[in-house]
Amino acid sequence: MRMVDVIEKKRDGYELTDEEIRFFVKGYTDGSIPDYQASALAMAIVWRGMGKREIATLTDAMEHSGETIDLSGIKGIKVDKHSTGGVGDKTSLALGPLVAACGAKLAKMSGRGLGHTGGTLDKMESVPGTSVAIDEKRFVRQVNEIGLAIIGQTSEIDPADKKLYALRDVTGTVESIPLIASSIMSKKLASGADTILLDVKFGSGAFMKTIEEAKKLAETMVDIGDSLGRDTRAIITDMDEPLGLAVGNSLEVKEAIATLHGEGPRDFVELVTEAGAIMLEQAKIAKTHEEGVALIRKAIADGSGFEKQKELFAAQGGDVSYLEHPEKFKMAKRILPIRAERHGYVSRIDSLAIGVSAMKLGAGRATMNDLIDMSSGIILGKKVGDKVEKGDVVATAYTNKEGIDGVLKDIHDAFELSKSEVAVRPIVHAYIRK
Amino acid sequence: MRMVDVIEKKRDGYELTDEEIRFFVKGYTDGSIPDYQASALAMAIVWRGMGKREIATLTDAMEHSGETIDLSGIKGIKVDKHSTGGVGDKTSLALGPLVAACGAKLAKMSGRGLGHTGGTLDKMESVPGTSVAIDEKRFVRQVNEIGLAIIGQTSEIDPADKKLYALRDVTGTVESIPLIASSIMSKKLASGADTILLDVKFGSGAFMKTIEEAKKLAETMVDIGDSLGRDTRAIITDMDEPLGLAVGNSLEVKEAIATLHGEGPRDFVELVTEAGAIMLEQAKIAKTHEEGVALIRKAIADGSGFEKQKELFAAQGGDVSYLEHPEKFKMAKRILPIRAERHGYVSRIDSLAIGVSAMKLGAGRATMNDLIDMSSGIILGKKVGDKVEKGDVVATAYTNKEGIDGVLKDIHDAFELSKSEVAVRPIVHAYIRK
Repeated sequence: MRMVDVIEKKRDGYELTDEEIRFFVKGYTDGSIPDYQASALAMAIVWRGMGKREIATLTDAMEHSGETIDLSGIKGIKVDKHSTGGVGDKTSLALGPLVAACGAKLAKMSGRGLGHTGGTLDKMESVPGTSVAIDEKRFVRQVNEIGLAIIGQTSEIDPADKKLYALRDVTGTVESIPLIASSIMSKKLASGADTILLDVKFGSGAFMKTIEEAKKLAETMVDIGDSLGRDTRAIITDMDEPLGLAVGNSLEVKEAIATLHGEGPRDFVELVTEAGAIMLEQAKIAKTHEEGVALIRKAIADGSGFEKQKELFAAQGGDVSYLEHPEKFKMAKRILPIRAERHGYVSRIDSLAIGVSAMKLGAGRATMNDLIDMSSGIILGKKVGDKVEKGDVVATAYTNKEGIDGVLKDIHDAFELSKSEVAVRPIVHAYIRK
Repeated sequence: MRMVDVIEKKRDGYELTDEEIRFFVKGYTDGSIPDYQASALAMAIVWRGMGKREIATLTDAMEHSGETIDLSGIKGIKVDKHSTGGVGDKTSLALGPLVAACGAKLAKMSGRGLGHTGGTLDKMESVPGTSVAIDEKRFVRQVNEIGLAIIGQTSEIDPADKKLYALRDVTGTVESIPLIASSIMSKKLASGADTILLDVKFGSGAFMKTIEEAKKLAETMVDIGDSLGRDTRAIITDMDEPLGLAVGNSLEVKEAIATLHGEGPRDFVELVTEAGAIMLEQAKIAKTHEEGVALIRKAIADGSGFEKQKELFAAQGGDVSYLEHPEKFKMAKRILPIRAERHGYVSRIDSLAIGVSAMKLGAGRATMNDLIDMSSGIILGKKVGDKVEKGDVVATAYTNKEGIDGVLKDIHDAFELSKSEVAVRPIVHAYIRK
């Protein structure tokens, strides 16, 4: 088989055979197929797309391009969730403890933040002492003991995706549903869980800009999971404003703690409750969605979610006194209120602008080598639907940097105001399952 | 400027600026832009195409990516021609001497054969002693002295095309009119002639399979030449049968000699006459096409074309006694007639099959490192339109190889017979100029 023939076949709009797709993934992973052929094929896929079978085979081949995580040592159904990434997305830090408190097993591998999106691992590390570098054996043991672990990806899983993703990033071949879906799903499948809940976000701070694109991606991923025998479901959630109020590492951890005390922002609580209910159904702990919702609400109300959150951090070496006394988190030196210059109703908060601004305040990385300032970020004072009077604080910036007037202006400008009342939209727009 | 942005712009269907195109060509030539980005851009160009301005700029940037040949030392208008390649294409060996005999200056750089197409340089070398490795200074002097030289390309011209062509060959990005046109034209323009005549072939043995594709390519190349200030014209010629009767190096040289003695096959004589007339118009030697045709016919009839052919080979070290006594050319050991198995009228002769068969008999290279057997090849006994009786010799194979029964069968099968009479088509189907 010659790679050039595979490229030409896809270029001309034909479906690739399973054999051709596996030939590509194997050859690209072992280096016998060079980058320049992989990028040409990737562009042909951006152009021509892929059918369901092709996408499932591509995902399966990538999943098995390296090691897969063996979670068979964990008793019961192993659930997992994945978010396509957004601004203020501290979901795992609240949702994980809640579903574990209800009896689900969540062995989660997370990532770090880059650009305008934060990463769960960075947020974890804002609690002093916490380690996310945990080997597979200890990972399995921890999940068996407390039902929950959140760790960094081991480098051996899905090397095909690692290589292909880096290539796509510099060859204009990121924007392709088949390539995005197979990239996400191959990693998730290699991580070994029995069930997967996908949180596919849309809006300015999300990878998918429209709800239609988000649905298409979600459906494609649910198809993949279904083809490969895993219970895979997806929710489509709104990123046309940041999730919750806090954006920035320790600020978001504090919001997750507050949420487990029943004091979370409306949209975040709604997301955690809906997602948690689905995961409890997938884990066969709840028989219906309503039962799942009730169980999550109970775990918030009775404090068992918060107890589980402390167990999680304690198991990974974190100083739990920070969770018990969030005022211990180091505060940024400069706390700057940003005020509305006119009155109106908030109709949209540009998540991308807020995410980039938080990064510039010190909360994120422009490149993977940058250091993060855990204490910096943004707390929104207003959300979509809120009434704003001139002079009201719409957001507060937390930073240790100087010379950030431009950033403050960007945060201000991220708020779009309408003259008329704006309806509050639900956070979950659609639920997709087979 | 970032290459990934250039790729994404083309991927999304936008026109690239001149600056972006030059950035790509310069960066790819100097190695700062890697192969994997070039191949992704090439695939995006296959997908989205390019506008006239983009193609002209791409061509100009490639032309100037290395050295260009300075022909200013040659007095008068320097004409050039280029064929997109076919089977039995010995045009330069007859056309060159004819236009030079009429007073035109032809400083021609040619290529070698690969696959099913032969190369003028190989054919030249079938005359013992002939050298095609001639430096620029001697090249210019020879054209000034005798009006004609045919040499191998110096490696310094158009390095961007050399690199990009090799990459396209293995990344499924050959089939793109903008990329093909800019590749051909950048090399031709770098070769320094004032006028260019393109012979764009279509049919099974040609790169363009249909007349429509051939016209599109020709129009694109004429546009490029026009944009960049050179008198560029094109003829669209038929490759749905091999050109003339002879396919194979010394066999073709002998046919070129015979043609200059007024004994050439009808289609080849027609092509040489039409192309020669246009080149004489471009050289401002003929005022009208008819005058050009008359001059070419005269140069055949009065033997001045043949005299010029001898001068050409003599100037490049060839043993002219072979031209005077073509029976001196070494004959292949095995001369095998191929006979029709039924009667009919020849409706088509698959040029690709004939070209590949000639290669297998020893006349061509499967890879650039193969050696050529100058004496082997095929002489057609019948052409399209000819009546064939069962048992007639349709072709004769010349070879020094054994075990070629399959090749003989392929040659036989290349002839398509019709029950009814078949009209002879003209060789030149269209003439394209600004």
